[in-house]
Amino acid sequence: MKVSARNVLKGTVKTILVGAVNTEITLEVAPGLEVVAVITKSSSEQLALAEGKEAYAVIKSSDVMIAVD
Amino acid sequence: MKVSARNVLKGTVKTILVGAVNTEITLEVAPGLEVVAVITKSSSEQLALAEGKEAYAVIKSSDVMIAVD
Amino acid sequence: MKVSARNVLKGTVKTILVGAVNTEITLEVAPGLEVVAVITKSSSEQLALAEGKEAYAVIKSSDVMIAVD
Amino acid sequence: MKVSARNVLKGTVKTILVGAVNTEITLEVAPGLEVVAVITKSSSEQLALAEGKEAYAVIKSSDVMIAVD
Amino acid sequence: MKVSARNVLKGTVKTILVGAVNTEITLEVAPGLEVVAVITKSSSEQLALAEGKEAYAVIKSSDVMIAVD
Amino acid sequence: MKVSARNVLKGTVKTILVGAVNTEITLEVAPGLEVVAVITKSSSEQLALAEGKEAYAVIKSSDVMIAVD
Repeated sequence: MKVSARNVLKGTVKTILVGAVNTEITLEVAPGLEVVAVITKSSSEQLALAEGKEAYAVIKSSDVMIAVD
Repeated sequence: MKVSARNVLKGTVKTILVGAVNTEITLEVAPGLEVVAVITKSSSEQLALAEGKEAYAVIKSSDVMIAVD
Repeated sequence: MKVSARNVLKGTVKTILVGAVNTEITLEVAPGLEVVAVITKSSSEQLALAEGKEAYAVIKSSDVMIAVD
Repeated sequence: MKVSARNVLKGTVKTILVGAVNTEITLEVAPGLEVVAVITKSSSEQLALAEGKEAYAVIKSSDVMIAVD
Repeated sequence: MKVSARNVLKGTVKTILVGAVNTEITLEVAPGLEVVAVITKSSSEQLALAEGKEAYAVIKSSDVMIAVD
Repeated sequence: MKVSARNVLKGTVKTILVGAVNTEITLEVAPGLEVVAVITKSSSEQLALAEGKEAYAVIKSSDVMIAVD
């Protein structure tokens, strides 16, 4: 499946923090560059996410803000 | 200002596409790794964004999905 | 690619409205049931969306609200 | 109240999963077609959601992505 | 219709900026306190929004970030 | 850091509800006007949020809907 989200960043699962409804996933998408996602616990289980596994961070461009110093 | 968004990725503005209401900004956040944002035209002007300028992509973790092959 | 978004609704593209930055896509996901998406014009072109084509509406569960009468 | 969200899908509450802060609600919006929402536990209680109750999934069009096979 | 979004701020439409797909609406929700929304042009027309009209800004709590100085 | 989000509402933290992954924060942004945010527990801790502390609600304009009676 090819999705319209403009941002698809390949990485490796670093940590997984599990709650009752949601799970927090940290991916390393470039050396020293991490992206954090909060998805449902159910999704995390369906994708069989585990530390060290390869995965993608997928982000719709309308959800990205820009900041400057 | 320090914001709660877990993802703050430093980069350089590569391209700017201006519409009537929205503007699309492409940042390079690591060598060969780009992130696309759609923000309002007004915001883009207030931040004085321009190609080559340093900026950050800011993304709330609840807006990040995970995918696997 | 398998994505963590819990909502993946199969449908048929009914209409496409193109702007400078964004494009509005209407999918029929069940008889008489339509879902409207706003994605970037660039994404719409990359997916080669066209009226009558089969496609999916993909929605992260944290972006869904509930209402009652 | 009439809301600007383009997607208002009428359905029936199938399941409710309660966490400390968030609650996951599954609605059936057409025969065999389910939509999952994550809302705050407090909202779920204020709406008095319960299995079998009629409710709507409300989704802003800018939160809908499109995918193709 | 009563919606699960925790933030429903009553205000008055100050300005409307119309694009091809999207429209930007500015509401004053308290004296000197404005909230800006980007919704589809079609939604804006369906709600018959106009300067001076009373309206609500509706925001899902998972879309609100917190910042500190 | 100056962020592209159009809505930056200054307020005072009223309540904090902590879950396993997420935390719900209520800010008073004008007399009698509250805004609720759900952010990660980790972000809340990093910002050292506490009741009575001054903070900002930050909201991207594409995440704001409009409603009318």
